Amino acid sequence: MEIQTQSISVSTPARQEFFDITDEVLRVVAESGLAEGLVQAFTPHTSCCVLIQEESEDITYYGTQLLLQDTLNVFAKIAPPARHEGQYLHPGPIHIKNAAELRGEHPSWGLNTDGHIISSIVGRSESIPVVEGAPVLGEFGRVYFGDLDSVRARERTVLLTVVGR
Amino acid sequence: MEIQTQSISVSTPARQEFFDITDEVLRVVAESGLAEGLVQAFTPHTSCCVLIQEESEDITYYGTQLLLQDTLNVFAKIAPPARHEGQYLHPGPIHIKNAAELRGEHPSWGLNTDGHIISSIVGRSESIPVVEGAPVLGEFGRVYFGDLDSVRARERTVLLTVVGR
Amino acid sequence: MEIQTQSISVSTPARQEFFDITDEVLRVVAESGLAEGLVQAFTPHTSCCVLIQEESEDITYYGTQLLLQDTLNVFAKIAPPARHEGQYLHPGPIHIKNAAELRGEHPSWGLNTDGHIISSIVGRSESIPVVEGAPVLGEFGRVYFGDLDSVRARERTVLLTVVGR
Repeated sequence: MEIQTQSISVSTPARQEFFDITDEVLRVVAESGLAEGLVQAFTPHTSCCVLIQEESEDITYYGTQLLLQDTLNVFAKIAPPARHEGQYLHPGPIHIKNAAELRGEHPSWGLNTDGHIISSIVGRSESIPVVEGAPVLGEFGRVYFGDLDSVRARERTVLLTVVGR
Repeated sequence: MEIQTQSISVSTPARQEFFDITDEVLRVVAESGLAEGLVQAFTPHTSCCVLIQEESEDITYYGTQLLLQDTLNVFAKIAPPARHEGQYLHPGPIHIKNAAELRGEHPSWGLNTDGHIISSIVGRSESIPVVEGAPVLGEFGRVYFGDLDSVRARERTVLLTVVGR
Repeated sequence: MEIQTQSISVSTPARQEFFDITDEVLRVVAESGLAEGLVQAFTPHTSCCVLIQEESEDITYYGTQLLLQDTLNVFAKIAPPARHEGQYLHPGPIHIKNAAELRGEHPSWGLNTDGHIISSIVGRSESIPVVEGAPVLGEFGRVYFGDLDSVRARERTVLLTVVGR
């Protein structure tokens, strides 16, 4: 039985953005020598997500795939971007006080409520079958890591786990 | 290879609510002796969900984390709470008749359409990598079980499965 | 350790529709002889999804379960059906040009943006614990494959993977 987890880092900007991590997924499966099983991409960050989508070729001025920008636009309808306190219940006063005193965070860094909500709806991982040594992603399928926290640039982590033989 | 499933019970009230099951997830991983692998939290109930979210410290009068109440509020925009028959197509007449005759249920117990829909969108499980004996949840990540059926108090089940070595 | 993936085919119409694949899931688990573990249903198509929902008995004129039609109606509020170019950013001109020249596709076949977006929100798979040889789906739980591309009839694939012993 083969089971292992590797970690990759992604530098993200101060806006909601997706990153194509398919090549890393393929690399981890190849290096593990997995023939049959599953590969999971998971992010531990509570304002991030992982999803699978078609490569849609055209891009925005920022280099974002049009289909992923459409997806961000739908996210913004579901949970409008947090622009000031009081728009959502979160962040509350205890959270803001602790963030400042214990972690030196500016109150405005708590304005990522929309990212947290969308993250929990979309989900933190995708698990893909591996058949004859390759993840089954279809002709155009790509694995994307999304950072939905638009408040500040961050260094983020994605865990890639293979299970099988 | 280590593989096992344990079941836990959660008593839920007659309103949509989340329950922090992180300690149970940690306990099951510790008891299994799992070093590397995955732990999955799954609920078989079709109006419930499992998600991962940050502990947001402040709470409502009901004791609900503010961030989770914001999430419930977004759910209510996506699928407004069912208050009377005809608001959604479901429950239909055959369903109501069978529920009454076969299971002794009151017709109003079928007014959980919103909970069913949100459950299927959010998903019924989360799967978390286990590295060096511990689930990788990040600094503030918690695993929550959500009961989205607001019609009646229930006894609910979550299954915790470990796979690995 | 038991690990294997089987593939099933589903013929889908030119409208958004769900298909009950529970019997196939049960068959694959039974044939594998799996006693304890997980069974995952995954679709590689980027405008399709897999979800678990209650069998709701009543159906529409098309034979769709009322609860699933309610779900499709909520999807259409989240991401309105694409009816003409310019409604979403996708499909862009490069995508339409490549689809025509490389794959002989009509431009209108690109009007499935809503299906792609909902697919990535709902997720491409569900993973169900197997205990004492049976997937734990609850009394009424069924596994559904959804094709959210309403542009044309297609032949679709779902992969069923068992992991365990």
